[in-house]
This record gives sequence, structure tokens and C-alpha cells, in this order.
Amino acid sequence: MVQFGTAGIRGPVASDVTPSVALAVGGAVGRLAVDESATDRPEIVIGRDGRLTGSALAAAVEAGVAAAGARPIRVGQLPTPTLAFASRGRYGIMLTASHNPPADNGIKCFADGQEFDDDREARIETAVAAGESVAAFDEWGETHRAEPLADYRSAVVTYVTSHHDDAGDPCADLRVAVDCGNGMAALATPQVLRSLGAGVVALNANVDGTFPGRPSKPTPETLGDLQEFVAAGAFDLGIAHDGDADRIVILDSDGEIVHEDTVVAMLAGYYTRRAVADSDTAAENHADAADATAADPVVVTTPNASGRIDEIVADAGGRVERVRLGALHEGIAAAERDGGEVVFAAEPWKHIHPAFGGWIDGVASAALIARLAATRGLVDLREPITERPYRKISVDCPEAAKSPAMAILESSLPEAFSEATVSLDHGVRLSLPDGSWLLVRPSGTEPYIRLYAESESVDSLVETATERIEAAVDDASSATTATAD
Amino acid sequence: MVQFGTAGIRGPVASDVTPSVALAVGGAVGRLAVDESATDRPEIVIGRDGRLTGSALAAAVEAGVAAAGARPIRVGQLPTPTLAFASRGRYGIMLTASHNPPADNGIKCFADGQEFDDDREARIETAVAAGESVAAFDEWGETHRAEPLADYRSAVVTYVTSHHDDAGDPCADLRVAVDCGNGMAALATPQVLRSLGAGVVALNANVDGTFPGRPSKPTPETLGDLQEFVAAGAFDLGIAHDGDADRIVILDSDGEIVHEDTVVAMLAGYYTRRAVADSDTAAENHADAADATAADPVVVTTPNASGRIDEIVADAGGRVERVRLGALHEGIAAAERDGGEVVFAAEPWKHIHPAFGGWIDGVASAALIARLAATRGLVDLREPITERPYRKISVDCPEAAKSPAMAILESSLPEAFSEATVSLDHGVRLSLPDGSWLLVRPSGTEPYIRLYAESESVDSLVETATERIEAAVDDASSATTATAD
Amino acid sequence: MVQFGTAGIRGPVASDVTPSVALAVGGAVGRLAVDESATDRPEIVIGRDGRLTGSALAAAVEAGVAAAGARPIRVGQLPTPTLAFASRGRYGIMLTASHNPPADNGIKCFADGQEFDDDREARIETAVAAGESVAAFDEWGETHRAEPLADYRSAVVTYVTSHHDDAGDPCADLRVAVDCGNGMAALATPQVLRSLGAGVVALNANVDGTFPGRPSKPTPETLGDLQEFVAAGAFDLGIAHDGDADRIVILDSDGEIVHEDTVVAMLAGYYTRRAVADSDTAAENHADAADATAADPVVVTTPNASGRIDEIVADAGGRVERVRLGALHEGIAAAERDGGEVVFAAEPWKHIHPAFGGWIDGVASAALIARLAATRGLVDLREPITERPYRKISVDCPEAAKSPAMAILESSLPEAFSEATVSLDHGVRLSLPDGSWLLVRPSGTEPYIRLYAESESVDSLVETATERIEAAVDDASSATTATAD
Amino acid sequence: MVQFGTAGIRGPVASDVTPSVALAVGGAVGRLAVDESATDRPEIVIGRDGRLTGSALAAAVEAGVAAAGARPIRVGQLPTPTLAFASRGRYGIMLTASHNPPADNGIKCFADGQEFDDDREARIETAVAAGESVAAFDEWGETHRAEPLADYRSAVVTYVTSHHDDAGDPCADLRVAVDCGNGMAALATPQVLRSLGAGVVALNANVDGTFPGRPSKPTPETLGDLQEFVAAGAFDLGIAHDGDADRIVILDSDGEIVHEDTVVAMLAGYYTRRAVADSDTAAENHADAADATAADPVVVTTPNASGRIDEIVADAGGRVERVRLGALHEGIAAAERDGGEVVFAAEPWKHIHPAFGGWIDGVASAALIARLAATRGLVDLREPITERPYRKISVDCPEAAKSPAMAILESSLPEAFSEATVSLDHGVRLSLPDGSWLLVRPSGTEPYIRLYAESESVDSLVETATERIEAAVDDASSATTATAD
Repeated sequence: MVQFGTAGIRGPVASDVTPSVALAVGGAVGRLAVDESATDRPEIVIGRDGRLTGSALAAAVEAGVAAAGARPIRVGQLPTPTLAFASRGRYGIMLTASHNPPADNGIKCFADGQEFDDDREARIETAVAAGESVAAFDEWGETHRAEPLADYRSAVVTYVTSHHDDAGDPCADLRVAVDCGNGMAALATPQVLRSLGAGVVALNANVDGTFPGRPSKPTPETLGDLQEFVAAGAFDLGIAHDGDADRIVILDSDGEIVHEDTVVAMLAGYYTRRAVADSDTAAENHADAADATAADPVVVTTPNASGRIDEIVADAGGRVERVRLGALHEGIAAAERDGGEVVFAAEPWKHIHPAFGGWIDGVASAALIARLAATRGLVDLREPITERPYRKISVDCPEAAKSPAMAILESSLPEAFSEATVSLDHGVRLSLPDGSWLLVRPSGTEPYIRLYAESESVDSLVETATERIEAAVDDASSATTATAD
Repeated sequence: MVQFGTAGIRGPVASDVTPSVALAVGGAVGRLAVDESATDRPEIVIGRDGRLTGSALAAAVEAGVAAAGARPIRVGQLPTPTLAFASRGRYGIMLTASHNPPADNGIKCFADGQEFDDDREARIETAVAAGESVAAFDEWGETHRAEPLADYRSAVVTYVTSHHDDAGDPCADLRVAVDCGNGMAALATPQVLRSLGAGVVALNANVDGTFPGRPSKPTPETLGDLQEFVAAGAFDLGIAHDGDADRIVILDSDGEIVHEDTVVAMLAGYYTRRAVADSDTAAENHADAADATAADPVVVTTPNASGRIDEIVADAGGRVERVRLGALHEGIAAAERDGGEVVFAAEPWKHIHPAFGGWIDGVASAALIARLAATRGLVDLREPITERPYRKISVDCPEAAKSPAMAILESSLPEAFSEATVSLDHGVRLSLPDGSWLLVRPSGTEPYIRLYAESESVDSLVETATERIEAAVDDASSATTATAD
Repeated sequence: MVQFGTAGIRGPVASDVTPSVALAVGGAVGRLAVDESATDRPEIVIGRDGRLTGSALAAAVEAGVAAAGARPIRVGQLPTPTLAFASRGRYGIMLTASHNPPADNGIKCFADGQEFDDDREARIETAVAAGESVAAFDEWGETHRAEPLADYRSAVVTYVTSHHDDAGDPCADLRVAVDCGNGMAALATPQVLRSLGAGVVALNANVDGTFPGRPSKPTPETLGDLQEFVAAGAFDLGIAHDGDADRIVILDSDGEIVHEDTVVAMLAGYYTRRAVADSDTAAENHADAADATAADPVVVTTPNASGRIDEIVADAGGRVERVRLGALHEGIAAAERDGGEVVFAAEPWKHIHPAFGGWIDGVASAALIARLAATRGLVDLREPITERPYRKISVDCPEAAKSPAMAILESSLPEAFSEATVSLDHGVRLSLPDGSWLLVRPSGTEPYIRLYAESESVDSLVETATERIEAAVDDASSATTATAD
Repeated sequence: MVQFGTAGIRGPVASDVTPSVALAVGGAVGRLAVDESATDRPEIVIGRDGRLTGSALAAAVEAGVAAAGARPIRVGQLPTPTLAFASRGRYGIMLTASHNPPADNGIKCFADGQEFDDDREARIETAVAAGESVAAFDEWGETHRAEPLADYRSAVVTYVTSHHDDAGDPCADLRVAVDCGNGMAALATPQVLRSLGAGVVALNANVDGTFPGRPSKPTPETLGDLQEFVAAGAFDLGIAHDGDADRIVILDSDGEIVHEDTVVAMLAGYYTRRAVADSDTAAENHADAADATAADPVVVTTPNASGRIDEIVADAGGRVERVRLGALHEGIAAAERDGGEVVFAAEPWKHIHPAFGGWIDGVASAALIARLAATRGLVDLREPITERPYRKISVDCPEAAKSPAMAILESSLPEAFSEATVSLDHGVRLSLPDGSWLLVRPSGTEPYIRLYAESESVDSLVETATERIEAAVDDASSATTATAD
């Protein structure tokens, strides 16, 4: 059974992501591409991260794709954003388990630069479940090879250079330490930063699927070496990526990790200000034009992302829309249908730069942040962003009680915080006038109701909210039990 | 269910030799190699013929091999004998359906230059039946590439040149037309013959897995173009191969196909004479040496091969051993255990040159026959071989009656031909003093007893034998029915 | 010293086209591309034919290109038209000596699908003469690889299919023998014809840079095997190519070679009729439209091409323009500047199909002729074309006398054939009302005045013209000598 | 003009190591290989380091090699020791400028695992000077590819594991920081150390021919980042390489650089003790055997290498032989001719491990030092080595006076240090009983006499020696001037 989670298909190669699973998924994607395409032998770009199992799984995917009547284009090891870039105008399959342990691997599917949406993922699941099915022997595809890395790196450099108005290198005089985590970032981030003029020292840039330097997920616990190195040396910035370089962590010049929501806020603020300024310039140039419309810059993010993003975006003249985790591209599409101009979209650690491409791209983030830091300094960029104390709490709640408890909380929480603005789109999210916020939602996988809260007085906020949650769970459990009786 | 037949695994890619079958067989061979080998990551050379499905199936095999902990060495398109050559000192897997139609494909497995024996094949079948099983993630193999064709062609040229005592090109002044049948021979036979000095014109040397020029199996029915071409032009020799170049057909300068048994006889006679001559030379050089042993050259062939082989080998001072179809390498091993020097082994159309390598090699045959024809002429070579009229008859026989009927025939046929020498190893085979022979054996797949006969008076021979077969079938059927009652 | 002739740079690898020449030319083309291009690292596609020296020379070209700051794209062995196709939107360098002997090689340069014009060739010669010069070390290009063959074959199939109005395969029921001459045609013509539905048997389709099957130049002297093969078999058509597949020769079903001018006339007539018909259809659809312009289909050819081309084109409603040998693309450009629609351009054996691409393309010719033959039959296609007896005569003439003799002939020949239309653009060319024509021009390399004539009464035509030429040479020689005194 | 220095051919690509130089050297090595080899198409492995100019220069070398009639085997980017390893049994050419700046490149030639000796280098120089010369067109080589890295890394791991007697990983519990300097070490040292069980964090392991992380030559001035990193973190060992990984620098756990002579002494002592111990063991096992010979372990080094090496080797029961810089392999050969068993050979930073292979190998050194540090600790290894204060002085001396001055010093210096042992093989080298030593020799490229001295009382030693040198230069200059008058 193959099933897509929020991160595609992912798990141990010994049980979940075996060669036969890769073969089946390759076949299903191949058939989908053949069905959707007008041309013979639609192209499917197949890439992989540095895991030891990537070469074999990519071969299995290739076999499935070719036997389905599509043309496999093998592109070897590269970052996930590079695979997305290379999938524009065709399809793509990436073998990666992102920051999972080395014994895992995974499969991500792309069409025209974007991860498969729910509909396509469901079709793949159905097709895999239906069993092996091949094209007529004379329709099988023939494997080609391509090398998109150089073009991708150039594209990032060109994009970020367009965010630099003056002469000279966009990152001149900036000194950056990059921890590639033995992953795919080693093939792109240091090179891009150097092309932009930065002085770059790379840590763990030897690609090694066993992740000998540090665990692949960049966290305060795993970035000790980088923190020490940045603190000991004369660096303006530290950057860390996960195994496939979609995710990014930023360190300041003291080696301290900048909070992921603050990084999102920095970029969200920058993009919004820029869009508004561009719109103003346009308005000046066409002062009397009837068609001059006001800018409506939108930042898309997820419910668990901090209110500090909302604050800075609002200050800059834009607005924030939220969408569930793992669905940023759907959020972008929705906001654009509503007439907004999506200038940035992000979950914590994962950023989409719509003007560059519709995929999560840690390399582009690294380059743009370096560019901004080179002119204004990281301190300046963070200065307008308010970071408040933060808590994440789990309250026990049986599975059956989750739904009725949440129903109760939809009214009881707003009652408790009567001054708050309420959103019920993704759980219950309350925003208070002083910039505090809290989010309550049921865990998707464990017997908990989760509470996220950020406030200068976070303890009292959490206390009040926890009481209400516990009360709601109690009421819901009784009711459930009663019904069951 | 994967099962090896006499020609390995073979069948339609839509049902029998699918990517998942290729993946499973690759995995099974990989595990076998890991089990048998002292070294880490034993190497498995993976090749394929020109079929449109070969690239995808080879990728599937590669995935299985790598995930099992072996190192796949991809070698692309090449003749089966080249893959066998490249598998010396390691393992090999060839994707080929030989001369089957284009919608088929197949898998042949090699260890150290020889096709898998029954034992290894049974282990593969068992392992495939046991289901998917992969090595620990850090033991998976990494794919390499190699290009053995140039070395193989050189090796054939060197081998055949050693059969040429004079100065000058071994095939000088010989003009040959080669019909490659759009198969792998296109990569080896014309090049080897040219290196030996022959003038070569190739037909159907564009590799094309749909076999547009002619069906892949070279027979009198499919070789019309070549026959016309040789007849119309000034050629000394015509050569045709099947899709993977293990099989060879020879045409004389009139475009007539030389009978496959005659081709075997020509080579068998040549090798035997040479061995005896070498032995004599050695004896002369060490006239008084105690260790001078008499030559015992052996030719291994199959029951259905003509008695003309026996005649010419005997004339030359050697002997013939027979082994069942598809088991030449086992016959070689048995003969060597008995102290014989196997100088040649062949089924009709398929030749092993033991001094070159333990695999069926149509390219080496092409080169050696061209070499012999260049000196002595094809006419001379055929001259000592007696071709007698030949018949192949099928007598109806229910499955249940086959065994008792054959038991009856083991005595009734020798009675009918009292002057014959009798062999009961593979059915009933009778050799008469005048060179006539007949073979009676049950079909393995159809409800027949087969009769093969070759004789100047073949009609009367067949008449007598058919009577005895029909009588035996009748008796056996009655007995069987009686028992069944 | 590197100099471009009408066929680019060509000669023995031992003296003229050595690795250092290839390196120098690669460098010069690289620098030209860098100078002309806005982008960094402009791409230069590097291909080669099947010659044994091609791999090394391509590596030398690659080195020059990369060191000049351009990006080499290696594409391996392919037909020259495929290289031209792959050079669209970028640059291309082809290592080929076309039909020269195997010890030669050569270099052809392309920009955006067209061979370099005189200006670019002169710049290359100058740059090579100026000596080695490399880009700054950090501007050197990195080699990539690409495989354009499959896309090229598809493009030809699509193009020719657009010339087929009915359902079904464009070449259904057509049986074709293709002699690839051991050259690059083996990679394209049989495959394209098969895709179009033809039954194809290929001769000499084993790529071999020693050209073992026949000399690379397809002529009546070298095509004996193919002629015999076509005559002996049931073929509708025979096709032969030179080593790099720009040149094509057509055989009828009897194995007779169709005269190269007749082949040009067939295609010229077809394209002209089609253009006129399309224009008529358009006119009908827009009967009253002011902008409906009459069709002005133009066929571009060379002075030595037969008047039969003019006849059939005129009959079909078009006109012929001539341009010097080796300059078809310049003729196309000139005709287009004059407002003509160039529907076809050809020298004998070499055809440009402008609607497909601006390069000489023997594969496209093969496919289109097969397509036409499948519907109308070759006999039908030739029927309207009048082939008259033809002579080519060389009259002795010292170098110094050539120019004054030609000056005399410009008036004396028109006097002798007063009813003729005269063209003085490329020597003296006379067209007579009965379809006869003659061309007189000085040889570029030998001490001769050449006379070409085609007429039902060719002997008397030649006699008259020869007298005038001899007289002109005598007069010119005397004058020259007198002056010298 | 191509000339080999002590490090092969090396210099700016804009002037000295241009593509045409690379082509010429490739051709010369190709012809040498063809001349020396019995077989057709001798193989020449062609590798390169990570410089931006390496790909183009390797293509030029390939062209030269192939046109000379040898077979180029392209192996891509790899460390110089890996290329040496891959050249065993054939030839090799490495494109590398070692630790030179990025605008340089260079060429090193190998035969059977060893750098070319003077004789072969002279033949290459002569052949290049003689101009371009190619093989007959049908003898040109065809390029193959190979991937020796995995086998090389395995070989190092196997070699070092044989220096580990116990069970478990040879480097278990060792934590190492490796600064790959953006060079080829990134492809081998971290991987080998990890395979041996070490925890490895790599710095500058992104291969980048511009050396963005630090200048390629590892020195106290350039290793600041690594020193800080090692000092800040919990590492047992720091390792740094130059661009092609033949050179190695060792840091202790405090981030301090271990003196290069001390590193040589550590390995020299280890190998000598091991050889003596092995010999003793053998002697015990064959106590009464007549053929039991005493061990004669020899360490080969260069004149500028410290006396601390001699001390520790003598203590361990071996002896030291010196040979001029850049000629270690000749020193090995000479010592072996004298009956010695060369157990180790080294210049400062460059080590040959004869039991592994006859080339300088920084990766093998890294692995063996890590292995020794894992058991005994670096402190223990250094403990027996005496490091004394060291000076290097340059005394002005006109070119013409160098030779007579050295002649004077050959007697005046021994007079000044009457208790010293004197060697006149490479300048004047004095060893004093207290372990002090000094070396006086003329500079090869500048107008100086150089003085190297190491002693607990180095200042007085230098004072005395400098006086004598200045006196000798004065005398020599006067005499020279007098003569000139």
C-alpha cells in the first residue's frame, strides 16, 4: 500500500519505500503523464538526494516510468528545488526522505514545477493499488540524461541579482558559513553564494547519505558544530540545510539560531514592502491612469506560524492568508483566485518565492537572505520583528472525543478571550490586539489536542486556554461515552 | 512465478517478463552473488539486446541487484556472448529474448562466463518466490558503467588469428555478406571480420528492436533477402545471426543455407583434426617422454544432432558425447571429468569454443568459419561431410502413454534394426553402420512421440520405425486404459 | 593555416585536420559565440560522424570551445542534418568529411541551424591565424552532454506526416532498401522510414569509419551492391547516403539510379505545385480580400543543375533562382529579400527543405520521397520530367587566359545561339526554347574551361559551343602572350 | 616550450598550461606509451582536480592521447593519489596544479603507479618540441570511461585496517575535523575515515576550483578556520589537504599545527618499529634458519627534513637516506638496490607508503594517522620526538659566486663544527651529536645561499654558520671578479 503523507511517500527502505514500491510509483506517474499529455513519450525528470539507496530506487522508478510509455530523464543527485526547477513544462520524481534518518527514503512527485496536488496523489495511490500494468512494447520510453544543476544555479543567481539595485556583487563583503549537512545543498548553496560575491566556508559539504557530520534535520540540537564555528569565526551569517535543501535554518553572527518564524517574517516583510513600493512607483508613473489598481500583496502561511508574520506584513501594507500544513501551493492558488498577488509563501523553515518558482526552495532563500544581510545586516532585518515567549502544549484527548471537543472549543475559547479575532479555518486560532496569538487543534496522529501560544504573558494565556481545553475534552468524553452506552 | 526454461526466462513483457519480474530476478541474483562472494559488493554485469523494452528492464534488474547489496555494472547493448565474456570473474545478467518476437524479452544469468546451472536457477526461482528482500541500507550497491565491446572484439580477433599460421590477414580476399537481423551482431560480427581482413557488407545492421528487416529467427523462410543478395553478388560466404548473436546460420556463395548439422560437423572436424595434430607434434617433440599421453579430443553435442558429426569426428580421431538440449556446458563438464579434452561443443546453430570461452558464441563462430573459408574455401570444408536425406515425424501419443511406450521402444526398436548401435541416454538413438541414424523421443510439451531420421534410404527407415512407434503407443495406451479401469 | 572551402574545412587528419587544427577552430568558434551572445557561456553543440578520428577531434574542439568561455554540448555520433537541427538557437560544430576517404576528416560550423556564411568563416580563419587565446580561467565552460537524435527523428516524421492528408501510415505498403554506406544515415533514415510505415531493409548500416561496405561517396560506381540488391528483391525504392547523411541518391525499383537533377526536379515540382495549390485555396477562402497576393514560389538551385528543373517548376507556376555552388542558404536569403517564397533549394544530391529547416538534409529528403512514392509511385513522379542527353566537356585553357576568354564568350556564345535566353551570373548559361541548356565556366582549380550541355541534340550543341570556346581561348591566349611580350 | 619542474608541468592556463600545451603533452605521452607497449592501444587514465580549467584541459589531453594511438580512459575529478592508483599496470595523466592559485593548472604523468622519472620526462619534452605528429587514422584510440574512486577508497580502508590488530573499527571513538580546502580530498578522506569508524566533520568539502574557503596551500596562515573549529569543538585530530590531496597537514586537538617534520618522524618511527618487530617475530619463528636476515628498514627523506626524523628512526632500529626534493621515488629505488627495505618515504607534507603504493598519498596518510591516533593518541605519538628551535636564513650571493662559495663551505663549515658528521650529497649538511643539524645550499632560483638550522641553541649555531657563509661568498665573489677582470 502506497500512501502520500504531507511530505509525499516516505519511510524505511526495508519496508515502506522498497524498490518494488518505487517501481510501482514510477509506473503510476508514467501512466498519469501519458494520460495527461498530448505528445508521445512525455518526459519525467528523475532525481535523487545523496542517500545510499537513491541510485537503486531511481533505477526502479526509471523502469516503471519507461514501461508506462513515458521518457525517463535521469538527472542524478541534486537538491529537491533543482528537481522542481527541472520539472517545469514536464513531470518530475524526486527520491528523497528530506531530513529523515539515513535508512529511510521517499518519493515526491512534481508536475510543471509544483508538487502533485491531492487529486494527482490520489490517482497515483489508486493506480499503484491496481497493480502492474505496462504499455505496449513499442511504446516504452528510452532513458535520456540531463544536467540541470548549472542552469538552476544560474537562475537563482539571476533572480537574486534582480533584488540588488547597485553595481558590484550583491553579496560583496559578506562572510557566510554554510552547513550542508552532507546533503544536496552542497551542490548549490555555496556555489550560488560565491557567485553572488560572498565569502563562503562550507561545513559538511561532502555528500554522504549516512549523514556522518550531523543528523540531517537542522535543529538547535544538531547544529552545535555550526554554532561553535560561526561563534568562533568572523562570520556575518550562518546557514544550515536539511538533506535535500528545501529547508533552511539561519544563524546570526553570534552563532545563535534565528527563530524560524522570524526568518519567515523577515522575508514576508521584505517582499511585501517591495510589492507596495513597486506599486507606488507604477502609480506615480501613471498618475492619471484609470487602470492603476492598488497593490494587494498577500503572504501565505500555515496556522502554526507566528503572529509576528501578520504584524510585519500588515505594517508593510499587505495581508496574510493561512492554509493547512503541506498545502502552500494550494494556498497560493486560492489567494490568486481571490485577486491577491502572492509575494511569498512559507511554513516554518520552508519558503516559496513565487516570482522565482512555485516550489519550496531553501537555496533561493539562502541566496536572498544573504543578499539582504549584505546590505542591511541581519540585525537590521530582525529589528522590526517582535518575538514573544512561545509555548507548545499537548492535552490528552481520546480519538473519539477530538471532534466534539473541538466543536465545544469553537465557542468556549472565543468566550474566554473576548477581545480576540477568531479564525476557525484550521482549528481555533485567536489573535489578540497586543500581538499575542494562540492556536488549538487536534493532533492528526496522536491522542492529543495541541495548543500553540505566543505572548508576552504566555503563561497566563496557556493556563486559561488549557482549562478550557481540558473542560471541553471532559465534556466531550462524557458525551461520547454516554452515546456509546 | 518465475521459471527458467532451457533458454532462461523468456516471454511477453506484458505478462511474463515485466519490470517487476526483472526487479525480482535482479534481487535474487544479487543475493546469490552476495552469499557466494567473499568480497563486499560483488559485481554483476548487466547487458541487453536491442529490444525496445531492454532499457527499462535493465533498469529494473539494476535496482534489484543494487538493493541486494551487489554492484551493478551497466554495459548497455551488446551480444549475449559479449555479456558472457564480460561476466568472467564475476556475475552477469543479460536481457534478451534471443530470436523471439519483439514483444517478448527474457533474462539469462551468468557466473564466471557460464550460464547458470540447474542448481543456481532453482535458487533464483526459490528466492523470487520468497518475495522482496533488501540488504541493509548501507550495503546497497552503487551503479558503475563499463564498455566491454572493444575488448571482446579484440579477444575474438586474437583467438581466430591464433588459428592462422601464415603472415597476412587471416581472412584476406574473402568477401562476406552478414545479415545482422537488426540485432546485436551488428556490434560485433562485421567489425571482427573486417579486422581479420575480410571484405564485409552488412545487411540489417541497424539495431532495431522491432526487427523491421526480417523476423529475428534466421531460417530458410526469413533469410530470403540475404539469399538473394548473396546469390546476386560476388560473395564467398553469407552469415546470419539471431537477435542476440549467439546463433549463427551459414550460406554458401550461391546463397544456399548450409545445413546446421553440417556447420557443426565442419567445426567439429576442424577442431578434432587440430587437436590430434597438436598432440602428434607434442609426441614427436617428446618422443621418449613417459608423460606423453594420446590425444582424446571430444566433441559434445545434443541427441537431435546428425550422425554426420560423429562420422567426421571419428574420422579425425575423436569421439562425440551427447547431452540434452540446453545443457552443453554440463556436457562439457562431464566429458572433462572423464578425462576428455573437449575441443568443441554445439547444438544446431549454437556453438561453444572451449578454448575461447565456455559460452555459446555466434560471433566467434562467424570469425572462425570465415577464417577457415578464406584458406580452404567453404566447398572444401563441406566436402568430407556426408549429408543424407532427413525426416522429422510426429506420432500421436497421449501424455500418459509416453513413458510406457518409450519403455517398449527401448527394446522393440533395437530388434527392428539389429545391426545398429543403441544409445538410451536421451530417448532411443540408433546409429547404423552406413551412417544412417534415428532418434525417437517423447515431446516435452506436446502429445507426440518425435522421430528424427537421416539416411540414404530414409523413407524405408521411417516406415519401419513409425510402425514400431505406433505399435508401442497402442500397447501402452491399452495398458494405461486397462490400469485406469 | 585553416581555410574554409565550399564544404567547410576538410582534408587528411595527418596534415590538414589535425587535433591542433580542431582545437584552434573550436577556440575561434567559441570566441565568436562569446562575442555574439548576450548570455554567459553560449552553448555550442559538438557532433561527429562515424570516422575513427572523430572522437579525438571532437575532444580537441571541446577543449577549444570550453577554454574560449563557451559551453560545449557533446552529442556524439549523428548525421550532419541532426547536428544542424540541434544547433537551432545556439551554435554547432560538426566533425565530418562527408563522403571523403576514411583518412580525412573535416569541420563544419553552424549558427542557429545554418552553416556559417562567408563572413563568419572569414572571422574564424582570422582568429585561428591570430593564435591561441583563452578566456579568463573562471570563464571557461563546463562540458555537458545531450542526445538530440530521438527528437530529430520525431521532427522529420512529424514534418513528412504533414505532407500526408489521409489516415494511415504515410508510407504504408512501401518497401525500401537503404544503403547507409556505414555512415550516419544508419542512425536516422531506416528508423524514420519505419516510423512512417515503410518496410525497410538496410544495407551497410553498421557504422564504421573505414567504410568497409563501399566508398562513402554514393555514385553509380560504388552502389553496385545496392543496385543488385534492389534489382533482385521486391523493392519500390532504393536510397543511398554519404557518410554524414546530407547527400542522397535515389534508385528506382529496377535498381537504376535516378539522375540527381531529376530527383531535384521531382521535389522542386512537388513543392511548387503544393505552394500554388495552397495559395489558390487561400484565395478562394478570401475571394474579395484586398490582401490576397498571388503565390510566388521560388526554387533555388546552382548553375550546374539541369534545365529540367526550370521546366517543371515553370509548369507548376513557380520560378528558379541560381546561386553558386555551396551557397544555397545565401540564395535562399537573397530570394526572400526579393519577396519570393523559397519552397525548396537544392544542389544535385543536396536538398534544403525550408519549411523543415535551413540545412541540407538527406534524411528529410529520404522520408519525403518515400512518402511521395508511396502514394503516386516513383514512375508517376518522374513522368513529367524530361531527361535529355547530357555532356560535360573540359577545354584546355591556361590560367591567365581564363578571364579574357570568358569575356569573349559572354558575347560570342549568345551570338552562336541567338534564340537562347542568357544568364551571365555564374559563367555563361544559355537556355534554349526546346529545353536545351548549356553552361560554360572556368574551372576553379584546373586549367580548363568547362562546358555542360543537355539537349536532345547534345552533340551538335557541344560541337558549336566547343568551337567558340576554343576560339575564345586562342584569342585570349594570343592577347595574353602579346601583352606579356 | 614544455618543461617539467619538480612538480611536473605547472603554471597559469593563460600562458603556460594552455589547451595546446595539454594537447601536445597528451600526444607525447600517447606516443611514448605506444612505443613502450606490446599491446595495441595502451591505456592512459586521464584525471583532473577540481579546477575550472580541468575539464577543457583533460579534453585536450584526451585528443592528444587518442590521436597518438593510445586509448584514453577518462576518470573525471579525483585526488592525485587516486589517479596514481588507477594508473597501475598502465599510464596516467593528472591535470592538477596541486596547491597553486586557481588561475594555474598543471600536468603530472604516471606509469604503473609512479610519477615519470627524469628519463621519461625528457622524452616528453623532446617529443613536444618536435611538434604535432599523429598515428595513422585507423590506429587512433577510442575514449572509454572508468570510475576508480570506490575501489581506491576500499583499498585505503583495507590497507589501514591491516594496521589494526584488534576487532572493531580501526578508528572507533575518534573524532576528526577534515579541511578539504575545496579540493579533491573531499572525495576520499572523509569517506575513508568514516569507513574506518571515525566521526568526521568536513570543512570546505564542496569541490570548487576557485578555492573560496581558503587558499589551496595548507599553511598556518591559511588554516585559521580549521584551527578555530578544532579548538572550539571536541576533536581529537584536525587534517588539512591541498587541492589534489597529495599533501597533508595535521592539527592536534587544540587546533595547533603539528610541525611537518614531526609528522614525518611519527610515521617514520611507526613504520620502522613495525618492520623491526615483524623481523623479530619472523626470527623467533625460524630461530635456527640459515636464511634469517636481520631487518634493514630504511626511511627515505630529503635534505631539508629535520634531524628529528633521523633520531627516531635510529632509535627504532632503522636508517635514513636522503634524496633531492621531488625525487623520492628515485631514492626508494636506490635504497632498494642497496638491499634496504624502504618502509616509508617522505618530504615535508608528502608521504609515500611503499606497502600501499609508490605514490605520494595524503589520503592514506590521513587514514593511517587517524588509525594510530585512535589507539595511542596523538600526544603519545609525538612524545618521543624532539622538536628543537628552527631557523631558515637567506644570505645574499651572486649567481656566479654560488659554486665557488659552496666549494669553500665544504671545508670551512666542517672546520667550524668539528664534532659534526658531514654529508656533501645535497649542499653541506652537518649533524651534531646533540641532535642539532644545519644544511647550507644554494637557492635554485634566487641569488641566495640558504641556511637551515635546528638546535636547542639555534641562535649561536646560525651566527657561526652565517659568518662562514658570508666569508665564503666574499672570497668567491672576489675571485670571480678577479677572474672576470
